[in-house]
Amino acid sequence: MSDSQDVIGVGVVGYGYWGPNLVRNFSQSPNTRVVAICDVRAECLAKVERTYPGVRATTRFEALLEDPEIDLIALATPVSTHARLGLAAIAAGKHLLVEKPLAASRSEAEELVACAERAGVRLFVDHTFVFTSAVQKMKVLLDSDGLGKLLYYDSTRINLGLFQHDVDVLWDLMPHDLSILDYLLGGRMPEFVSCRGVNHFGELSDLAYATLMYDDKFIAHIHANWLAPVKIRQVLLCGDAKMLVYDETAVQEKLRIYDRGVTVSDRGEIYKRLVEYREGDMVAPRLENIEALAVEIENIAGTLLRGTPVIADGAMGLRVTTVLEALSLSLSRHGESVAVGESRANRHVSRKRERS
Amino acid sequence: MSDSQDVIGVGVVGYGYWGPNLVRNFSQSPNTRVVAICDVRAECLAKVERTYPGVRATTRFEALLEDPEIDLIALATPVSTHARLGLAAIAAGKHLLVEKPLAASRSEAEELVACAERAGVRLFVDHTFVFTSAVQKMKVLLDSDGLGKLLYYDSTRINLGLFQHDVDVLWDLMPHDLSILDYLLGGRMPEFVSCRGVNHFGELSDLAYATLMYDDKFIAHIHANWLAPVKIRQVLLCGDAKMLVYDETAVQEKLRIYDRGVTVSDRGEIYKRLVEYREGDMVAPRLENIEALAVEIENIAGTLLRGTPVIADGAMGLRVTTVLEALSLSLSRHGESVAVGESRANRHVSRKRERS
Amino acid sequence: MSDSQDVIGVGVVGYGYWGPNLVRNFSQSPNTRVVAICDVRAECLAKVERTYPGVRATTRFEALLEDPEIDLIALATPVSTHARLGLAAIAAGKHLLVEKPLAASRSEAEELVACAERAGVRLFVDHTFVFTSAVQKMKVLLDSDGLGKLLYYDSTRINLGLFQHDVDVLWDLMPHDLSILDYLLGGRMPEFVSCRGVNHFGELSDLAYATLMYDDKFIAHIHANWLAPVKIRQVLLCGDAKMLVYDETAVQEKLRIYDRGVTVSDRGEIYKRLVEYREGDMVAPRLENIEALAVEIENIAGTLLRGTPVIADGAMGLRVTTVLEALSLSLSRHGESVAVGESRANRHVSRKRERS
Amino acid sequence: MSDSQDVIGVGVVGYGYWGPNLVRNFSQSPNTRVVAICDVRAECLAKVERTYPGVRATTRFEALLEDPEIDLIALATPVSTHARLGLAAIAAGKHLLVEKPLAASRSEAEELVACAERAGVRLFVDHTFVFTSAVQKMKVLLDSDGLGKLLYYDSTRINLGLFQHDVDVLWDLMPHDLSILDYLLGGRMPEFVSCRGVNHFGELSDLAYATLMYDDKFIAHIHANWLAPVKIRQVLLCGDAKMLVYDETAVQEKLRIYDRGVTVSDRGEIYKRLVEYREGDMVAPRLENIEALAVEIENIAGTLLRGTPVIADGAMGLRVTTVLEALSLSLSRHGESVAVGESRANRHVSRKRERS
Repeated sequence: MSDSQDVIGVGVVGYGYWGPNLVRNFSQSPNTRVVAICDVRAECLAKVERTYPGVRATTRFEALLEDPEIDLIALATPVSTHARLGLAAIAAGKHLLVEKPLAASRSEAEELVACAERAGVRLFVDHTFVFTSAVQKMKVLLDSDGLGKLLYYDSTRINLGLFQHDVDVLWDLMPHDLSILDYLLGGRMPEFVSCRGVNHFGELSDLAYATLMYDDKFIAHIHANWLAPVKIRQVLLCGDAKMLVYDETAVQEKLRIYDRGVTVSDRGEIYKRLVEYREGDMVAPRLENIEALAVEIENIAGTLLRGTPVIADGAMGLRVTTVLEALSLSLSRHGESVAVGESRANRHVSRKRERS
Repeated sequence: MSDSQDVIGVGVVGYGYWGPNLVRNFSQSPNTRVVAICDVRAECLAKVERTYPGVRATTRFEALLEDPEIDLIALATPVSTHARLGLAAIAAGKHLLVEKPLAASRSEAEELVACAERAGVRLFVDHTFVFTSAVQKMKVLLDSDGLGKLLYYDSTRINLGLFQHDVDVLWDLMPHDLSILDYLLGGRMPEFVSCRGVNHFGELSDLAYATLMYDDKFIAHIHANWLAPVKIRQVLLCGDAKMLVYDETAVQEKLRIYDRGVTVSDRGEIYKRLVEYREGDMVAPRLENIEALAVEIENIAGTLLRGTPVIADGAMGLRVTTVLEALSLSLSRHGESVAVGESRANRHVSRKRERS
Repeated sequence: MSDSQDVIGVGVVGYGYWGPNLVRNFSQSPNTRVVAICDVRAECLAKVERTYPGVRATTRFEALLEDPEIDLIALATPVSTHARLGLAAIAAGKHLLVEKPLAASRSEAEELVACAERAGVRLFVDHTFVFTSAVQKMKVLLDSDGLGKLLYYDSTRINLGLFQHDVDVLWDLMPHDLSILDYLLGGRMPEFVSCRGVNHFGELSDLAYATLMYDDKFIAHIHANWLAPVKIRQVLLCGDAKMLVYDETAVQEKLRIYDRGVTVSDRGEIYKRLVEYREGDMVAPRLENIEALAVEIENIAGTLLRGTPVIADGAMGLRVTTVLEALSLSLSRHGESVAVGESRANRHVSRKRERS
Repeated sequence: MSDSQDVIGVGVVGYGYWGPNLVRNFSQSPNTRVVAICDVRAECLAKVERTYPGVRATTRFEALLEDPEIDLIALATPVSTHARLGLAAIAAGKHLLVEKPLAASRSEAEELVACAERAGVRLFVDHTFVFTSAVQKMKVLLDSDGLGKLLYYDSTRINLGLFQHDVDVLWDLMPHDLSILDYLLGGRMPEFVSCRGVNHFGELSDLAYATLMYDDKFIAHIHANWLAPVKIRQVLLCGDAKMLVYDETAVQEKLRIYDRGVTVSDRGEIYKRLVEYREGDMVAPRLENIEALAVEIENIAGTLLRGTPVIADGAMGLRVTTVLEALSLSLSRHGESVAVGESRANRHVSRKRERS
């Protein structure tokens, strides 16, 4: 670290919608210090100066690269700029935190991962939802086999959202679910994906439905939508032993775990299996009331200062981008099933066919 | 009518889950009278005798066909029996009400429709949801162009449901949405459909996601699921002027109409359109508190007694069955887009390809 | 029993709002049989004849008294008639089930209890809520000391209700809470009660607030209201170890038990105690999905046929009536604290003063 | 103003729970500037220095009084200090904003109001809830007679709250409802009040029920509770034409207006009036998404800079304190009805008796 007091110097690029949250959390953490903020928009820098008189505000990205006090560069800029700015930061020897999704394509994401590895710097992806108390609790549950054999994941992520100009609803909203899934499943990738959607207002899809098929009949489905009159952030994750509902918008009881499941018994009859339901209590576990971004920044700081394991790294960001690219391909092919290539070498989505 | 007092004599076949509801409502209507109930299960007939001492209970279906006091036969039997029993009823000159879905295949449905037409009897399909106060109100709204240009229909129809032995979740739950859509859109059919799903416990799919693409970018999506820990019956129907949420499980305010929409303005710039949201009040209209099945039976009675227009007829049942068959085909082909043939002559699902 | 098959013959008086529910449940129970139904309104008897062809319908109450096949008379008539009709039934040697509240005054209730005791017949009061799965579960919890020291009971029982012509909102809605409290507390009575309310439309109060003070600082409060735009049936019952919320209108999770409480620690300081909160998980126990009235009738049948303990007897009905009378007195005195006499001999509400 | 640019210089006293919200909002307003913050706790001042490097942090209250750049002093200190600190600020010629409730007694409140008037400075009370979008909308509704004749106000304000050391739950939570009521009713006072409550953990009541009786049968009731497992902030305000529910914790549709009411018709019969319900649509009006405290500060700034009408002034604070004192008296007298004196001269709560 550049700083003898073991405080990570941070440069934040982009002070629009998400940047202020990064800056506020980096400021509040005892392990990080915001050194400089870069934005091309004068009105954004004016806000910085009013709120954070002690932080340098600049329109020159290079000023951050050159600043020896900056250890980590955090990008909160449009997706299309991630590869270019990120590669420059890596080349300058800075650690990198990139707003989700990691890059605009799988190949860009691969390049970022590879360059960071070669340069010996750390690459983090800002998949904030992974750090919510609810998802952390879900991970503990899954790791202790608390749900039984997983059956499906179903997410409804809809609201009257901000139309983005550079990405469609798929690249805007689905990274949340893809990163949650990646985290919960320990990096396991779907084999095949399908996506249907429409663009009612312009070139970019404003609502889309994605289906992910895994090799063991586990199925994940995501409904992402910018055109809904109500805000819903609901995930169902169901196993054959227990089932849970995660409602991010709930004020209380965000996570509800139902002791409900299915019992299958073969009754000696050739043609008939008895499928029965089991119903028990519901438990809503107490969840820590902490901001997810603060937890994420502690994870990043721990990795940089003490080498503790990283949670949302470049590899996760690459896997998410790979699935996004496959989904986009399926969307353009009217929902055709698309195989998701798993190896890095395999730069193009494979033409493997789904078995019947 | 066989009855000089203009009361329709009804014979109900099947007294399991749904049959008792039919019998109760036919009994309460001043326009219908339950003459006989047929079931092969002795314990079901015993219940009939206890509850309705004045109604004949029989195991012989033929007894109903032969009974001159019976004008209408109502089938609440497994789907696989609809065609055989229904054709027999038609042949006996009885009007026919068939539990949804009309038949187990499109060709069966076509035969029922054609035979009823030739025999000069009326064919009704028991698409009960169409008769709910909420759907009736939605129809009035749409017919007065209250939502603007329709953008999408999204339905979540999930619960820890009864596993059916003869049909999968698609044929069990999706007829509700397909009939609601058919009614709201005035019989307009989707051009292409896709369906993905899995069968975790046996041969039949227990959860499925269907997408219906119409010729004007209107998209409909249905999530049907027997494996959910919570019961959700939620429909979003959104236009560019207003958007509504219909929650069938809500005790109050089942229907909420949001004065929210999207405004698109071209600002003289070549590459950019401004998409803006508009937010206004929400209105939950008062809904009549009537049982949908009672409304349905009044519609049937009105058609038979006074020739008033039928709402859920064989043609609707045939269209719903046609879409179900196309969805099943897509499901078996890993979600491949399947064209929905619209003409009766075209007995097989066409191989038309979706345009890019 | 008059019936050798050990089936209780029942005569139901009053076939208006609640009577049909009694008749339906008495009909469905294997232990009871509805012999006759009495009502002075011809249109009500016509309904009886249509729905229950096998049951005698009569306008003569005496016909029930004289009928040897009738063992139990159930009164679903206005409160003002309970004493007269009930005493006649007792005099005829019939067991008696009386719609809540037991009587229009404490003295009437005492007379009913005393006469039934002398006549050797059983007196039941139809406090149906006591038999709901939720209240039964709450009783089990309390009896195992699951909530710790009880702090308070708070009930909101409001809706746009039917205005009653013979009783005010206090006598109409509060018996539900008073019987639940009586059951949960094992018959323990409040020491002092207060009640405030208003009558906006006529002579009878249409909304009222009652407070019940017990000898150990336990406090109960009931908000009863016929003038609310939404229907709320919510009870909070809180102890210092756990706290529960019982929402009768909820479709799922009617009962939620919060592992939340208060810890008080004296820190050696003279003037200061540290009151701290403890927050843990919430559990919504699985509840049986049975109609409360069916459970109640099984309890009545068990008492009459096998001598099993009665749950809602005349003594409970008398205690509830006693509290109602004290509340009415307080209401008429602008909420003045009124002592609740506990002994039967003490026919008048005592003038004991609440200690400061 | 001391500042030629017409920006109000603010000194904030107390940087504990509420102070930071005041400072943040005064900082963000273009019309106000935080000059100094005073707190006796070193750790609080340390936070100030970290977050607001440009603001003077001091433990000396007098430093604020002496500072010519300070026009307005905002007190976010315990209630017991309001009178002493407030009078000193007034004596120093500063305008004053006092955290609710204005003072620990009616006489203190009167002294503050009188001194501010004599000194020619403005006295504001921080009744923040009055400035929420929902309450502002309710005021517009009432002023246009949108609810008809008002029948009742019912508030449930409960949660597992922070135990206060200097005030009971009555003085902690009820000022919110008393100020909302005062605002909605244009300063009209209740004639009589009652209050019941208990103190389970220490000297101070932790739950209390207050009833306010107005001269026209309008009744208000407040349930304030620090011992509830769930957070509820629900107000019902009902008239005979329309009824509304205001749920402060709702994410969407905080305010719902029901077109429901009561119709009374005299049918020529001497003893009987027909009370009927009317049910229509429900409307949830769109509400501005602004922080109430920001609106309040704009109102204060407008008053000081341009003389626009003040909303929450000392007179409102005095009326709220007067009702609180009467409620406390009733609480100590077991809920006895206490008359609320209206004139300032009448320093003691009158012994007027409520008419029967």
